[in-house]
Order: sequence, then structure tokens, then C-alpha cells
Amino acid sequence: MEQNKIITDRLEKLRNKMKQCGIEWCYIPTGDYHNSEYVSDYFTIREFFTGFTGSNGSLLISEDFAGLWTDGRYFIQAEQELTGTSIQLFRMLDEGVPTLVEYLESHLKKEQTLGFDGRIVPANLGEEIELKVKKCEAFVHMGFDPTQDIWSIENGRTEMPCNPVRELSVALTGMDCMEKIELIRNEMKKQGAKYHMISKLDDLMWLFNIRGNDVECNPVALCHAMLTDTSVILFIQKKVLDEKILAYFSKRNIIIHDYFEVAEMIKNMSDQGSILLDKKNISAYFYQILREKWTIIHQPNPTEQMKAIKNATEVERLREIYLKDSVAVTKFIYEIKQNMKNKNYTEYEAAMKMDQIRKEIPECFDLSFPTICGYQANAAMMHYQAEEGNCAQVLPEGMLLVDSGGQFEGGTTDVTRTISVGETSRKQKEHYTRVCRGMLNLSEVKFLYGCTGRNLDIIARQPMWEAGIDYKCGTGHGIGYMLNVHEGPQSIRWQYMKSNVEAILEEGMIISNEPGVYLDGEYGIRIENIMLCKKAEKNSDGQFMEFETLTYVPLDREAVIPEGMSDIERERLNRYQFSVYEKVSPYLTEDEKNWLFQETRPV
Amino acid sequence: MEQNKIITDRLEKLRNKMKQCGIEWCYIPTGDYHNSEYVSDYFTIREFFTGFTGSNGSLLISEDFAGLWTDGRYFIQAEQELTGTSIQLFRMLDEGVPTLVEYLESHLKKEQTLGFDGRIVPANLGEEIELKVKKCEAFVHMGFDPTQDIWSIENGRTEMPCNPVRELSVALTGMDCMEKIELIRNEMKKQGAKYHMISKLDDLMWLFNIRGNDVECNPVALCHAMLTDTSVILFIQKKVLDEKILAYFSKRNIIIHDYFEVAEMIKNMSDQGSILLDKKNISAYFYQILREKWTIIHQPNPTEQMKAIKNATEVERLREIYLKDSVAVTKFIYEIKQNMKNKNYTEYEAAMKMDQIRKEIPECFDLSFPTICGYQANAAMMHYQAEEGNCAQVLPEGMLLVDSGGQFEGGTTDVTRTISVGETSRKQKEHYTRVCRGMLNLSEVKFLYGCTGRNLDIIARQPMWEAGIDYKCGTGHGIGYMLNVHEGPQSIRWQYMKSNVEAILEEGMIISNEPGVYLDGEYGIRIENIMLCKKAEKNSDGQFMEFETLTYVPLDREAVIPEGMSDIERERLNRYQFSVYEKVSPYLTEDEKNWLFQETRPV
Repeated sequence: MEQNKIITDRLEKLRNKMKQCGIEWCYIPTGDYHNSEYVSDYFTIREFFTGFTGSNGSLLISEDFAGLWTDGRYFIQAEQELTGTSIQLFRMLDEGVPTLVEYLESHLKKEQTLGFDGRIVPANLGEEIELKVKKCEAFVHMGFDPTQDIWSIENGRTEMPCNPVRELSVALTGMDCMEKIELIRNEMKKQGAKYHMISKLDDLMWLFNIRGNDVECNPVALCHAMLTDTSVILFIQKKVLDEKILAYFSKRNIIIHDYFEVAEMIKNMSDQGSILLDKKNISAYFYQILREKWTIIHQPNPTEQMKAIKNATEVERLREIYLKDSVAVTKFIYEIKQNMKNKNYTEYEAAMKMDQIRKEIPECFDLSFPTICGYQANAAMMHYQAEEGNCAQVLPEGMLLVDSGGQFEGGTTDVTRTISVGETSRKQKEHYTRVCRGMLNLSEVKFLYGCTGRNLDIIARQPMWEAGIDYKCGTGHGIGYMLNVHEGPQSIRWQYMKSNVEAILEEGMIISNEPGVYLDGEYGIRIENIMLCKKAEKNSDGQFMEFETLTYVPLDREAVIPEGMSDIERERLNRYQFSVYEKVSPYLTEDEKNWLFQETRPV
Repeated sequence: MEQNKIITDRLEKLRNKMKQCGIEWCYIPTGDYHNSEYVSDYFTIREFFTGFTGSNGSLLISEDFAGLWTDGRYFIQAEQELTGTSIQLFRMLDEGVPTLVEYLESHLKKEQTLGFDGRIVPANLGEEIELKVKKCEAFVHMGFDPTQDIWSIENGRTEMPCNPVRELSVALTGMDCMEKIELIRNEMKKQGAKYHMISKLDDLMWLFNIRGNDVECNPVALCHAMLTDTSVILFIQKKVLDEKILAYFSKRNIIIHDYFEVAEMIKNMSDQGSILLDKKNISAYFYQILREKWTIIHQPNPTEQMKAIKNATEVERLREIYLKDSVAVTKFIYEIKQNMKNKNYTEYEAAMKMDQIRKEIPECFDLSFPTICGYQANAAMMHYQAEEGNCAQVLPEGMLLVDSGGQFEGGTTDVTRTISVGETSRKQKEHYTRVCRGMLNLSEVKFLYGCTGRNLDIIARQPMWEAGIDYKCGTGHGIGYMLNVHEGPQSIRWQYMKSNVEAILEEGMIISNEPGVYLDGEYGIRIENIMLCKKAEKNSDGQFMEFETLTYVPLDREAVIPEGMSDIERERLNRYQFSVYEKVSPYLTEDEKNWLFQETRPV
């Protein structure tokens, strides 16, 4: 096995630095100052030290140990990227695999010190770690910046992002920012809070009806906010604000302070009092300051739930945008299928093709994440990224998985199709059929109000489980509106974690439905539609709920084995395919339309 | 509406007593000193004051208010039984219905006092109530016995139960009591506990391998226990112990103290230390004493989980007993169906018939609960109890629901069938078909290790939900071994309750599978099989789990509408029916066998 010299050198530098600072253990999560899921290049510290490029992972390192923890989406990818780095992979949630904190607890020795950068660790996790460290009679040093003297602008680190900010019209958001602030103030009042501090970027964008561009594919701007019942302070890099946006804030009496002033401000505020905050979404560093003097009211940010429940304007725009997006993906599938007869795309070229067709939609202003385009074995890596010049050729056999989405004036999209590009094995078709069944069964489920994603997950997963197969990720995630492609609080997952808070599925939430089958080294199949949660009938047994599908992209007719479905499931498939033809065909060329007609015929 | 004079008189006496004692509010739950689900007659205090006979319900009363809280199984029954009592019914978990504690919180005034008997309230609930009461700046009086001077032996209260106790052989239990005690001690050590106190009766019976008869249909004896790493004290009514059982305890160095000595004992123990206990299963009264001086380690009783996981001996005996029980129920169904042509049973007579057939099984020593035998509208009351001379005639139309079970040397059974006794409406058959589908789909589900009942509930409930119908109870409960027909920690329910602890389904657990449709005033349909949780294949995706059905009683062929099922579901039905014929027919008469053959033909 060849050594990855770049990474081992960096780890050596880090270990030297740790020694100098009297630190035996160092913890480096993936994170910025806002607990963002995706971070700008400036914050890819864990990636810098490990070479692992996935969006979720944490490094724990000592003199003679280095371990990376990541989740099921990235097991295959991490294994490849960690080759030769001497970093051990810990597969989160796999049987018998300790969590990072459990590992730390059983290896940290008395009087040792664990160092981390408290600015990039959420307060709840910071506190959990502190507790365990104390239990080991060891110490925590929250001010340890692992990048100092190792990774600076001079040797390749990018600058902190600092991009223009714009306001969104009420025609797009359905509600002015001052109305939203009033809703938050009601919540503060209910909780008895004088202050409320928000650091979560998408919550802030939603609240202020603004958008930025500081994280790739996430239209957010770096900022924090402090609310009281009479004032609003927004901490934001002043240089990103133009006249227009300054006028927008000024008109609403929103006070602007510079982004870096927040710590000083909270340290020195004279009339400290009760403050509502979400320990998950405030940094350990801020929290350490706040808990000294303030009375903390622990609650999720009220913005999180409000943002997740799309209002009537948002829902209306989403329906339009998802249809346009569906047309683009359908055209792309046609393009791929037609071209397999003539020329072969590389994965990268296919992804570019998808992006090009999507970007032709006038409302599209960005992708919602870098397009995932994986052929056969590469598709088994859930978040595979094809690189130009270093990716597979799409051959006329097997299947191509394409997971993509866009940022639009009017919504954020996310859709996956796995496309047969030629002769496909019986086994692969059987698996494709199972994934179809899971996705369609979940789409049509009816349930009582009060259900959370944990109740519903098995509906999508059962066709896989009945064959002794599992996909190592959730079935569904919430999606932002012109915002992050992943947002909470809702999700569709099955795992039970003690004291985890679950979100009830509310009318107006949108959520993905994306079961899959991933065979390491062979192929990956994922099908993803987006659904809107709606009220169904209400009767003496309660309020029933159901989903409306927003995605209209054909499923692959030749990859389906009709005998692998129950009669009811075949009807479901046929109904869905018919609705795709009805909705999408008006926007297609004659050739595309003829193909779609064939593709969506009943099985 | 006629007044229920008996009840209103009792409530008046209670209110007078409350006034004398300076108590504005009184809380009376259903409970004994052991947090038992079912209680002996001596403890039916809530029933005495309300007239409501269900097994779950709590009364909250003040000068001008009286409310009873109960769960969905009892809504219909409670409404009937509370008629004329002036007691308001609160339907637990229904939309917009406050919990008892919420109601109390919003009505209790400053400086008022809430009284209850801390001996019959579990400590966790007692503490929750105390907290809320304090928040209202009011007071709690835990020593208020509502029965004093109102309900005594002189005016009809029974004596405290005091029945003989016997030991069980290892041939039945699979493990000696000292082995079990060692397992508990390991757990105590792991938790750093010097002491462990147990008040839960079925946990105690399991641990000591003894059985009593102090609660109807529950073979338990009133007792408490205190364990250390070297000693075991059992607090039990001394007069119930004969020479043989005394020798059994003495041989194992189990020290016997009288049942009523426990409070004095814990008050006066000199070397108090860390004590492991389960606040759910210790009375608020004991807890009040313990928390003064002891260091409490809060954990579920280790006995609970160990008892739930049946060992190989228990599983082997259970398979035998469930088959014998299934034969008895099958014979009963034949008897009912045959006799509908000649004579009509009353519900009570039918129940007696069922009990008689079951008691003919040599191993049967009791029922596991009073047989529920409800015809049409009466079956809509989930726990309806037919009384001799006050029950319905079973007419040759519609359906009869029979839910019954026995206590056997070798297990506890529980089974429900809804039997068509003549012409049945299309709607009722459609509902019967849905219930069949739910029950069979859950029986055949395969799932990954780590699932709890909250993941699986929807598999059984979906056929109802898709028609906009719900049953207001869980789908499944654990079952004791020669013990209580309901036991934890596992269950199959869907509702999310914040901070509720869920139990992972483990190999060796047995659990009921009993979806239903209940139409108030029309009919009730429930089908209940018992399933054993087992390991299925283990592969790189994890350990898969599945159920083995223990119940082999035919489903009602004429009540099934085959077109209402998917092809897969019809196969499931046919497979189950075939297995019933295979297993049960060898034990039937020729006539019974011929009938069963017809009944179990494929649809």
C-alpha cells in the first residue's frame, strides 16, 4: 500500500504542534462557526488533515492514533480516500463500532489534555465531550486552532468567504422579514426569553429574507443575529453590503454590526438576562461565554420549524419549479439514452450535460449541490464526485446514477434517477425493482398526524430488508426553499437514539424519498422524489396526512421486473408513470415525447 | 340522564373528607403498592369512586370538578360507565385533550393543596406532579388516603390478598433463582450500585422463580426485595409461606421479612449507599424515604429486560403450550359455528365455553385475563366484559369477538379471533380483510436489529390508515411466562413521546400482533397472534430479525374479501391457513378436521 505523503506530512506537523502545546489528543470535526453541514473551502480543516472529502466526518488524533468517523453514505469513499494515510476508518452506527466520544472516553488517560477549536464545535457536542473528559480526570482546551502555522493563506488556504448579499421579494418568500421576526418574538415571549441568539446560517437567511453565496451551492452569507423584543442586531461582514441592502435593513430598523464583533458584544453587554438558544447551533466558544452570566433557555431555534413549514406562496412556487426541473431531468435521461447508441459520455461529461440543461431554466441561479454522476461501481459511493480526467467512461451496459438539483428563484430541487444505459443483469434489475417499490410505497402512504419519519421509514426500506439488504443512510431529509438542500427538523430515518428529538411531519413540510441499494464494487441504485406533506381527511379517528409528489421524472421501464412487484405496486408504478407523461410531455420535443410515451406505458 | 347515586354519594363523602383535611384537589390513580397494571380488589380505589371498571384510568377531583383520564381501549366503555356520575371523561392522546398533569397545572391555584396516597403512585409520576405543583406555588400532601373512613372492610372492601406461594422447577424456568440473582448483581456492579430495590411483582416472581395468586389472573404474590452483592431480603406476607417454600428460600440464603416491614427497614438501615432503582416501579412513598439519604442510580430494573428475553427452555415450552392453546381455540370456533345453526349462545355462555375448553388442557391452571367475548357493538369496546344475565345474545348474523388466554405450566397465552356467526355486511368483511392484512403483514416483516416497536407499528396499521381508520391502542405488547399477560419493556406502538425510552426488539422476546377496527355502536374486529422475535440472516449489512408465529388458529375464510388484498397478501393468508391446518388438525375430531380443511383452503 502506497503512503499518502501529503497527508502523513500534515499529520506529523499537527502532532508536533500538539506536543508544543501540551495536548495529547486533538479533535477536528467538519464545521464552520455556524454548525453548517457543508462548509466553505476556508473551513475544510478536517479534509486538509485527512484527505477525506465527504461532507460529514470527524478526526480524532493522538501521538500514535488517528481515526476518522463518518456515516454510511461515505463508507466506500472514505475507505478509498484514507488509503495510505494511516488514518483508521470508524463506520458510524455499524454494529460494535464505538462513537468518537466513546472511543475518546476509553482511551483518554488521567491528566491528559484534549484540544479543539471551540468555534467550529457545536455547544452541545462540546459539553458532552467536556463531561466525558472530566470523567476521565483529564482536561479540555477549547482554544486550540489546529491550522495555526500549518494551514494559512500563504500555503494554500483560501480566504474566508465574503460575497454579496441580496434581499428576496415577498413575491418569492410570501412573508416580510418583520412578520417573521414578530413570530419569533412571540415564541421568545412564550419561553420567557429576553434575548435570542441565532448562528445557523439558513435560519438567518430565512428570517431576514436575504441570500448570499458564502458556501458552495448554499446561498447563505456568514452572519449571526441577536434579537430582543424591541431590537434586532445582525452581525455580518460589512463589506458585503451594498446601498440597496443597507437601505433594506435600515428601513426595518435592523442594526448592523460587523461579523467579528459578536464575541466582544456578548461579553460586554450590560443587561444580560434570559437568552433562548439552541446548543446544537451555537458554537462551544460562544456558549462558554454565555453560560457564565446569562440564564439560558434551551430550545431549538424557532426559525427551524417555521422555515421547514413552507407557506402557500412557497408551495405554489415549488410546484412550478419542480415541474420545470423534472422536465430538465427527463430531457437529460432522453439525451443519455439516445447518445449511448452513438457516443459514450464520461461520468463528468454526463454531469456537465445535466447541469447545462438545468441551467437553461431561466429561474436557475446555481446548483443545489455538485451533481453526483456515478457509473456502476462508482454509484455505490453515495456521494461520489466525478472529476474531469479522473472518472469512468459510461459504457453501454449497466446503470448510471445521477443525483442533482438546482437553486431557483422559487425553490431548491433535488432528484435522483438511476438510468439503465444498456444490457443490465437480472440481479441489478431485481434491485432496481425493489428500490422503485420502496419509493412508490412511501409516496402513497397515508398516516395519522403525529407520525415522525421514524414511523414511516420502514415503508420505503421494507423491500430491501425483505431481501436482507440495507442502505446505510436515512430515507429522507427536509429541503430548503432557495436554501440548503438538507434542512431539518424533519427526516425519515429508522434508527432509535435515546433522547433524540423527533419532528412530527407537518403540513407544508417537504421531504425527500430516496431508498437505494448499494453494492460495494458492483453498482449503486438510488431513486429520489421530493414530496410535500399535506393534510388528508379528518374524522373522529384523527387528522390523516399524506404526501403530494413534486417530482415528475420517469422511472426506468426496462429496469423494472413486473413480477417482482405486487399487483398493487404495479398499479402504483403505472399511475406514477402516467402522471409523469401527463405533466412533462407538453414541454418536450416530438422525439422526446414519443420516447417518454413508450417509457411510461403500463407494465 | 339518570344520576348514578352510588357514585355521586361516594364523591360527596370524598369531597367532605378533602375539606376536613384542607385538600382542594385529590388525585386517585389505578394502582397498588407495586405499580401493577391489574390490581387486586383491595386496590380498586379509583373504580370505587368512579364506577369505571377499566384497567387503566385516573381520577382528578376538586370541589367542583371531577375528571377521569383513560386510554383508547376504554373510551366507549368509560363513556357508558361514567353516565350519571358527573365525572368528565378525558380521552388520553386524542387531539387537544390535556393530560391529567397539564389539566392540574392549568387549574391548580396558588397555595392550594393536592393530596394523594403516595403508596399507590409511582415515584416518577409523583415527582412530575410535585414539580408542577411547586410551579403553581401550591402544595403536595402525599399521605392522603382517600379510602380512610369511606371504604373499609366493614362497608364492603375486601381484605388485602394473601394467597399461598409456590416455587417453580428449573425444568419450567430454565434457570435457578440464584443464577438470576448473579446476573442482577453483575448489572448492579456495572452501574456501581451497592443496593437494588425491587417492588414490581412480576419482576420479583421471575427473579425468585416463585408464583402466587394475589391478583386475578396474574400469578403474583405481594412482596418487595432488597439485594446487595452478598445478601437478599424478600419482604413478603409471612403467613403465605409453607414449610416447603421456606426451605426453598432458606437453602438459597434468602432472608425473609414481613411485607409491611420494608418502610421501617429502609428508614433505619445504617449503611445506606448507592441504590439502583426504577422510579417507574417504586412508589412515591418509598422514594421519598430513599432520596433523603441514599445515592440513587436511576435505571430500569435489570429484571425487566432479562424477564422479557425468554430462554431456550421457556421458548420450547411456549411453542408446545401455544399449540395446545391454539387447538383449544380452534375447537371453540368450530363449536360456535356449529351451534349457531341450532341454538344461540349468550356472550357469557360463549365465554364460559371457551374457558371450559381451555381449562381441559392439563397444564392450564388459570386464565391469563377474564375472557372478552363481545358480539357486534359490544366488541367495539376493546375490553368489554360480558356479565351473566346482563349481556347480548349472539344472533346468526355479524361477528363475535373473543379475546382470551390461559396460565399454563409452561407459559401464558393470549389470542383473539373475530368469528362470523352468520350473514355479515360487505363493510364488515372489508374491515375484517384489512385487519387480516395488517396482522399477516406484520407477522412476515423482516427488519434490521435495532428496530423498536415504533418502527414496525405502521406495517400492521397501514391497511386501516389507508382507509382513514385508526385503532386507538398499540399493536402489540410483551407477554409474561406463567406471568402477567402484559409485560415490558417491548411494545409495538407508533406514538412519539419525547424522552420515552423505547426497547429494541431482541431475540427471545414474545410480542402480540393485534390490529383492529372498532366502530362505536356497530362492531369491533380484532385479530391477535403472538410472535417470537428471532434472528434471521446476518451479513455485511447487519443482523436481520424476524418473527415466528406461535399462534395457529384459523382466520375466518368467509369474512375475507380476496380482492381486498394484494396477490402477495393473499399468498400470506394462504400460507398461514395451511400452517394452521398442518399443526392443529392432528388434534381434532374427524368433524372438526373436515371443517378446518374447508376453512383453511386457499382463497
